[in-house]
Amino acid sequence: MPVNFATPAPEALFPIAGIRLGLAEAGIRKVDRRDLTLLALDAGCTVAGVFTQNRFCAAPVQLCRSHLDSGSEIRALVINTGNANAGTGEPGLRAAQATCAAVGQLLGVGADQVLPFSTGVILEPLPIDRLIAGLPRCVDDLAAGHWHAAAHGIMTTDTVAKAASRRLQINGRTVTLTGISKGAGMIKPNMATMLGFLATDAGVAEPLLRQLVREAADESFNCITVDGDTSTNDSFIVITTGQSGVSFSDASEPGYAELRAAVISVALELAQAIIRDGEGATKFITVAVEGGRDRQECKRVGYAVGHSPLVKTAFFASDPNLGRILAAIGYADIDGLDVDGVRVWLGRAGEEILVAEKGGRAESYREEDGARIMQEAEITVRIDLGRGPASGKVYSCDFSYDYVKINADYRT
Amino acid sequence: MPVNFATPAPEALFPIAGIRLGLAEAGIRKVDRRDLTLLALDAGCTVAGVFTQNRFCAAPVQLCRSHLDSGSEIRALVINTGNANAGTGEPGLRAAQATCAAVGQLLGVGADQVLPFSTGVILEPLPIDRLIAGLPRCVDDLAAGHWHAAAHGIMTTDTVAKAASRRLQINGRTVTLTGISKGAGMIKPNMATMLGFLATDAGVAEPLLRQLVREAADESFNCITVDGDTSTNDSFIVITTGQSGVSFSDASEPGYAELRAAVISVALELAQAIIRDGEGATKFITVAVEGGRDRQECKRVGYAVGHSPLVKTAFFASDPNLGRILAAIGYADIDGLDVDGVRVWLGRAGEEILVAEKGGRAESYREEDGARIMQEAEITVRIDLGRGPASGKVYSCDFSYDYVKINADYRT
Repeated sequence: MPVNFATPAPEALFPIAGIRLGLAEAGIRKVDRRDLTLLALDAGCTVAGVFTQNRFCAAPVQLCRSHLDSGSEIRALVINTGNANAGTGEPGLRAAQATCAAVGQLLGVGADQVLPFSTGVILEPLPIDRLIAGLPRCVDDLAAGHWHAAAHGIMTTDTVAKAASRRLQINGRTVTLTGISKGAGMIKPNMATMLGFLATDAGVAEPLLRQLVREAADESFNCITVDGDTSTNDSFIVITTGQSGVSFSDASEPGYAELRAAVISVALELAQAIIRDGEGATKFITVAVEGGRDRQECKRVGYAVGHSPLVKTAFFASDPNLGRILAAIGYADIDGLDVDGVRVWLGRAGEEILVAEKGGRAESYREEDGARIMQEAEITVRIDLGRGPASGKVYSCDFSYDYVKINADYRT
Repeated sequence: MPVNFATPAPEALFPIAGIRLGLAEAGIRKVDRRDLTLLALDAGCTVAGVFTQNRFCAAPVQLCRSHLDSGSEIRALVINTGNANAGTGEPGLRAAQATCAAVGQLLGVGADQVLPFSTGVILEPLPIDRLIAGLPRCVDDLAAGHWHAAAHGIMTTDTVAKAASRRLQINGRTVTLTGISKGAGMIKPNMATMLGFLATDAGVAEPLLRQLVREAADESFNCITVDGDTSTNDSFIVITTGQSGVSFSDASEPGYAELRAAVISVALELAQAIIRDGEGATKFITVAVEGGRDRQECKRVGYAVGHSPLVKTAFFASDPNLGRILAAIGYADIDGLDVDGVRVWLGRAGEEILVAEKGGRAESYREEDGARIMQEAEITVRIDLGRGPASGKVYSCDFSYDYVKINADYRT
């Protein structure tokens, strides 16, 4: 059960003018499962994305990069669950190309105007015939109101569909943002088996949108960890349709800051939903690091703490085993870190206690206070490195029996 | 239960002329537990060590470094279990100093001739009065034949005492090596809550011994991982007494190569014993990486695979989920890695099968073959990066429910 996250109701996910979504049961891996999702974009949209850094990046990721780089106007996204089409070599690439070609033919656009996405088991051939056979039913199903269905369509081991939506006024007009994401394991810096799609009816021109998608990922999907495994398929895509009449081509234009903040806010909600639904998660942990020389070292400390299986099992046990947190800070490989200058707080909503300073336990710390906070479902570890002005956050979850169970049983 | 490792019988652990060992129940953390171990060295020994890279290194580690650097002749080692004296700040350092002073006084040597070691819970004050009160009983207990008892004395969450011994002929004389180690969690590159002590009656002069201890650690304790957590207390110490009459001061001297090989062999056995007894381990996994440009990138790939919770849970489930191995290779951050040139084999004693090549599953691979090998308790993953002459190995274990159980319950 996710930690303080529930799928928004269908009516809380606002349509985005210029985008229609359609789903079908293609039988990729399981029956009675709408496992194929198509997004059809009107002409005039702008699309940008960031992708996994994994060297074994999946065939669809390779094609996404190439189609986005080609400068072709993107007119469709197609997403299958049940099979990642990763570690599938040359045949996998051909399967992804065939998928794009089939979508292009159905919608009357070029194959290079289609972005493909796959998620699921790695190293197994994509059942391309079944996938292509399902596409016409996706087209028949296309409708602007299908975001809720699409959020369900892209799930794998997720226990809950992840989506978020916002409406705000920018420059006197209503701008809408809606996004969906999936992922529960293989989550780590630079993304994971994680897909995120965020759309808005604001318009953002190409070079600026590429910058925005990077900034949003850096504040959201690149701040999360479930198990430290970076997947082969991670993709985060932002689509801007411009149909609200509000458009930007330069970051200095009035109203852009509001749009940027809204994009980051939705991306963060989608990213955090992945952690809240992390495999076996019972707690949501924010590791907030400050006082670093730069953001990078803050995130390195955040990830060391957020990744540590010893820290994560202690959270699962509600055990204020703070030594494990200090040990993780210590091995984060921060050059010249003076541990005597490091301070650590443990917090929950409305309460924060100093637990460590001067290289050891804080004198004021009482174990019963730590134990009380560790009982909470949402816990913040705040770390002041005491050596600079930078800060950075990492979001993680605890490590439970169920993580092992889910990952030991995944394919069976 | 450890994977294919049992403590050698007391008589299989040969005494080392020049070293006596004594134990006592000091009540550091538990009652009815010999938790304090003293090694008394004759005059004329040479001692060198390598220690944790963790910035929050424990007070005893700081003292060990300083006493070894001072050039004082080391005459005793004192090891307590039950408390790591780490994250204990200035009082912790004073406690470690008081321990050395007390040992020095009992043995008639200086405090700076004593090396202290602590293992156990972090961030709790060392009960120094009880520790010091136990020391005279350690002295009373000193005997050359107590290696077996000492291997038990230094355990924490270990389920089995770890020790190894060798006798060999070098330059016509009998040389003996005996070592003990402890550690089961917080195991990672550059060592972990891991203590290793290796002694020999060969003599190795100071600069050469410092080199030897580094080489031996690099081939053994720095090749293992249980959970990727590097502890605050890791120490690996080599003591040479010289009392066999065989001594070396230069690596080119006849017989030194044999001694070096024996030291590495014992260190490797002690390090592997830690993995075989890894918290919750049911399988022992060797990740053998070859074809790399340098040893460092081979070990980086080995660690990526050996650390991955997804790979480790798949091994626990005997699931040949090879995609997770490829994904881990892919995120090991090897610059310019051509995944099409990577080949991966899965092996057990007497059998090895090619499972992946050309960016995907090998054509000859049959899942039933993979499944058969995954049933074994000892499995090798061999990875050829296909881009150079270097190689490197990493030893790991699987990730089971019991890992979570042990670490969630550790302090309760």
